Amino acid sequence: MNLSAVAKKNEPIILVTNDDGITAPGIRALIEAVHGKGRIVVVAPDSPQSGKGHAITIGVPLRLDPVDIFDGIEAWQCSGTPVDCVKLARDKILKGQVPTICLSGINHGANHSINIIYSGTMSAAMEAAIEGIPSAGFSYLDYSFDADFTICKEVVEDVADKMLTTDLPRGTLFNVNIPEVSREQFKGIKICRQANAKWVEEFDERRDPHGKKYYWLTGEFKNLDSGNDTDVWALENDYASLVPVQFDLTSYQLKEKLSKDWKL
Amino acid sequence: MNLSAVAKKNEPIILVTNDDGITAPGIRALIEAVHGKGRIVVVAPDSPQSGKGHAITIGVPLRLDPVDIFDGIEAWQCSGTPVDCVKLARDKILKGQVPTICLSGINHGANHSINIIYSGTMSAAMEAAIEGIPSAGFSYLDYSFDADFTICKEVVEDVADKMLTTDLPRGTLFNVNIPEVSREQFKGIKICRQANAKWVEEFDERRDPHGKKYYWLTGEFKNLDSGNDTDVWALENDYASLVPVQFDLTSYQLKEKLSKDWKL
Repeated sequence: MNLSAVAKKNEPIILVTNDDGITAPGIRALIEAVHGKGRIVVVAPDSPQSGKGHAITIGVPLRLDPVDIFDGIEAWQCSGTPVDCVKLARDKILKGQVPTICLSGINHGANHSINIIYSGTMSAAMEAAIEGIPSAGFSYLDYSFDADFTICKEVVEDVADKMLTTDLPRGTLFNVNIPEVSREQFKGIKICRQANAKWVEEFDERRDPHGKKYYWLTGEFKNLDSGNDTDVWALENDYASLVPVQFDLTSYQLKEKLSKDWKL
Repeated sequence: MNLSAVAKKNEPIILVTNDDGITAPGIRALIEAVHGKGRIVVVAPDSPQSGKGHAITIGVPLRLDPVDIFDGIEAWQCSGTPVDCVKLARDKILKGQVPTICLSGINHGANHSINIIYSGTMSAAMEAAIEGIPSAGFSYLDYSFDADFTICKEVVEDVADKMLTTDLPRGTLFNVNIPEVSREQFKGIKICRQANAKWVEEFDERRDPHGKKYYWLTGEFKNLDSGNDTDVWALENDYASLVPVQFDLTSYQLKEKLSKDWKL
């Protein structure tokens, strides 16, 4: 075994996925940002999967096909959800080899605050984190197809470097959102908490050509949090936000209260 | 206005939903358990939505149709996910009236530990909790169509009564799982934390009639937690588990650590 084979053997495996689908510009930007840092393996949905949350596919079987659209980087498209992609990557593509890190995105649109709950981008990263792989989801506050990902790529590279060189606790997961600002305006990355926010829905009610009602989901974002340590605050003040995320959803505070109050 | 009209005006609104679909036996059992406790409004998916997590429907419009299958109780079926049902209920059925509580289930199958992340049952309840409605999801460890819901109904009634009579903090959400045991074995409800557990996936690889591969998701549940205060422990010891759940996913511990360790 020569030295270069040893280096090859120890190089990090970077699993890349997203929820906008494998042809979205954001995933290409993410790949470019970490190019050269290890063996990149891309497994992403074959169609847009925004808002799919932590959905998995159990009622229909899944398809998985190799694609060659990233200059020779190993890539697969999957007919399932972002979470399916991560599960299939582990079992069928990496065949039990554990990725060093998993990066999801770059999502076209914000996933700060309560949006994490609905986000396929973050759910894919969470799925990897549940598997013990340090993971991060990246989202850009510019929805447009021709968004400029320059600052995003710098943020991805910075966070990926830190993830590859820091000893992180099992279950580490970051929700990173990047503001739409110029280089001059951009103030760097800020570690934040999830803002308390929600969506106020108003369904757009229409009638089909047969006179029957149907509804489009629309909504208005409402920030209920005035703190200056939240992701929403950071983004409004030209920082990229990084929220460390957990998937133990137990409310220990309410658990303690009810254990006292309720006779069970 | 006479007295009965006043009583009517102040009666609780109980929003009922699920992820197994409006015709599942579990939702009927849930309705029976809370019958007479208030105005029941049922809004549930028109088809099974297991494993849909917190998915919302944004790429296609939604349908919403009244159904009369619960002896005159107001009920609607929706073409979307469990979370869509809760959103539509608020905006288009209750037209801004806030339900007193929201109950989801009774799910056919367990939603303890990490399963909460994938569960449509729990995501529907969480959506209502985000809206400020005290909510609970109920799941029964018996998958069969003709499962006996007797003990489940007692648990639902007990929890619903407590929710209707206790002053609970905003965002209250419970994940309740009920073991498949006899009346004699059943030990009551225990307040727990979410067990640290995961699924080890093995996709079942097959070939279609054209020779092309496809995959079915299968997996083995792995409890990594030896604590005796977890939901998995409770269920294994013949208790129903009640985990208070939160949707602030910030890991404050990791946030503190990184704020010190990382130069940002």
